[in-house]
Amino acid sequence: MSINKRKIIVQKYGGTSVGTVERIREVARRIQGRKNKVDEIVVVVSAMGKETDRLVSLARELGTASLREQDVLLSSGEQVSVALLSMALLERGVKARSFLSFQLPIVTDERHSAAIIKQINVKNILDSLHEGEIAVVAGFQGITLSGNITTLGRGGSDTTAVALAAALNADFCEIYTDVDGVYTCDPQVYGAARKLRTISYEGMMELAGLGAKVLHNRCVELARKYNVKILVRSSFNNSEGTWVCEEEEEMEGALISGVTYSRGEAKISVLGVPDKPGIASLIFIPLADMGINVDMIIQNIGRNKAADVTFTVPEEELAKALQVVNKVATELGAEGVDYDQNIAKISIVGGGMRSNPGVASKMFQALAREGINIMMISTSEIKISCVIDARYTELAVRILHDAFELGGNSV
Amino acid sequence: MSINKRKIIVQKYGGTSVGTVERIREVARRIQGRKNKVDEIVVVVSAMGKETDRLVSLARELGTASLREQDVLLSSGEQVSVALLSMALLERGVKARSFLSFQLPIVTDERHSAAIIKQINVKNILDSLHEGEIAVVAGFQGITLSGNITTLGRGGSDTTAVALAAALNADFCEIYTDVDGVYTCDPQVYGAARKLRTISYEGMMELAGLGAKVLHNRCVELARKYNVKILVRSSFNNSEGTWVCEEEEEMEGALISGVTYSRGEAKISVLGVPDKPGIASLIFIPLADMGINVDMIIQNIGRNKAADVTFTVPEEELAKALQVVNKVATELGAEGVDYDQNIAKISIVGGGMRSNPGVASKMFQALAREGINIMMISTSEIKISCVIDARYTELAVRILHDAFELGGNSV
Repeated sequence: MSINKRKIIVQKYGGTSVGTVERIREVARRIQGRKNKVDEIVVVVSAMGKETDRLVSLARELGTASLREQDVLLSSGEQVSVALLSMALLERGVKARSFLSFQLPIVTDERHSAAIIKQINVKNILDSLHEGEIAVVAGFQGITLSGNITTLGRGGSDTTAVALAAALNADFCEIYTDVDGVYTCDPQVYGAARKLRTISYEGMMELAGLGAKVLHNRCVELARKYNVKILVRSSFNNSEGTWVCEEEEEMEGALISGVTYSRGEAKISVLGVPDKPGIASLIFIPLADMGINVDMIIQNIGRNKAADVTFTVPEEELAKALQVVNKVATELGAEGVDYDQNIAKISIVGGGMRSNPGVASKMFQALAREGINIMMISTSEIKISCVIDARYTELAVRILHDAFELGGNSV
Repeated sequence: MSINKRKIIVQKYGGTSVGTVERIREVARRIQGRKNKVDEIVVVVSAMGKETDRLVSLARELGTASLREQDVLLSSGEQVSVALLSMALLERGVKARSFLSFQLPIVTDERHSAAIIKQINVKNILDSLHEGEIAVVAGFQGITLSGNITTLGRGGSDTTAVALAAALNADFCEIYTDVDGVYTCDPQVYGAARKLRTISYEGMMELAGLGAKVLHNRCVELARKYNVKILVRSSFNNSEGTWVCEEEEEMEGALISGVTYSRGEAKISVLGVPDKPGIASLIFIPLADMGINVDMIIQNIGRNKAADVTFTVPEEELAKALQVVNKVATELGAEGVDYDQNIAKISIVGGGMRSNPGVASKMFQALAREGINIMMISTSEIKISCVIDARYTELAVRILHDAFELGGNSV
């Protein structure tokens, strides 16, 4: 007798996909349809969109003195969703069973509000699948060995889904969201944007880090580590979606996967710093101590052997950063501190950029042709980013999308 | 070295007491005040009032196909409250820790939506108290040995509180609600109503059963079984409240504790049933099979040796009951079926009624004096109930309250 491996998939539905009872019914319908094509389905759900907002605002009213209690509060959101989705499936005659983290368990460390998954016991899920049920698992939450409820932080439900897919050795993990895949650029900025059929884990991480908020990096990192194939799809239509998987499975066509941008950063310059070794550390260590995340850095030696140091920080941390930097600038005898919030970071993402020096120059030329000034540049193996004046953001996206011919049919 | 037993109390706050963040802050303030007078406090909370309504309406939208999933859904309400109350305590600098049922655990049987508590492990609570914390426990919920979430049904949070008080061997259990104690009659019906200082478990159960919705019978039953003293108080003022405890601790004064009424019943009469043995069972067995709760029953033998059988059922089950009864009446060859929804049951509750036959006649006379017709009568050791026309309800309460001099100072 031959044993055929049964096909298991993990599906994850985000907050907007389960935002109302009507939407939950729609998700149940979709799961039922999918059940006809695969053997076993495990579903991970987030809290209903508005529910999370409501719980977060309740928590804010009472302060965040206790991250432990905040986790107890927030994790109730997913508890509501798993129950409602299970009820919607049962309403359709589809056998289903909900699982909270402690019921598996999904064990995490003790870091409340940003816990790391240590271990998942899938026995109860396998028993449920064996009974012919859809296993509906609460995303975003975990339980510590000492029995405390934790939450996983941003991108938590995606992370739960990928971790479960890894633990179950699932065939792949479908992430349902409110966009129908990963595009060569933001379709709202440039109609020529084209949906990618595949993208590598690395490319996806660069995109996510650069502001294309389809998947959180943490979940992509985990998927790469355990080689879990992810299919990003929309829960609002039947479009095919984009596969996020290992490079060798990616299309061999174009070098560049997409153009992306981010407006959430601000630029700070410390001007006329007397040049001596260690300037950078004197500026950046106090920033790191304050938990401020510095992204791009450039340093120019100018007149009088004085240096200008320029760097970017998340816009919401600008005020805090300026306080630190003004103090340091005085200590260093710098001439002054300047800042600019009206900047955008525009990036092209793809593979093997360093081995194709023509890519960078092509990018710079394309921007220059339209008179867009490049303030800062940073490059890596799979992306080139330029900081430009924010008002040229959309123009730059279109220019680069055209320059690299991303709108074609061949990617 | 002598060991003094530390004083432990259990407090329970209902849905209106924790209805808003502002109310939760108020409860935290009250707990802090109480903490100065006793050694250890364990707090049991219900879901925020509106939260329960919201969850119930979500459940209704998706049907109640699965009581298991409904319990997962509803129990999230208490999860929100324990987290918020713990946060409110911590905000005031009072150490606190929330506990869900599975975190103790509070083990129940498998009866979803109406589970029975089998066992409570208080070790984690004692550890928390030992750390100087207020232990904040989710009411209404339990966990089965196989790890499923259950809820306890109506009066669930009160039951959790009394069960915890028993398991902890607490000094007493304070139940905070929206009334400030147990009254001799409904103060809204008759201003002469007086708050009782004490009432026996049995008297309290009769009152609860008769519609005075201060405490659910199930929790009083449990309190009696484990001899847990209950103090019913308002969370909206500092009034002293009413003790529910063993009879010997009750005041010896008056025989009658109070007058109560209920309008939630309807009366059905099966008229002209040919009299033969077993009529009653032929009528009442089918009703019991449908789960319809019959309360009072009278049977008169009238003209032609035909019997009239009259009984009361909860008003919301009238339609269902009539369907059954009409069918049975036809089978029995009865002359007809009659019903009346405009009835009220008015009762006096106290101790040793059977040994004081004067009590019943005093009641009947008082009603007769005002021309109030008594349709049905039922008596027990601690109550006498009469069914009357609903429009005389308030009048009857006032008459009986005066007749038994319940407004005095001597109870």
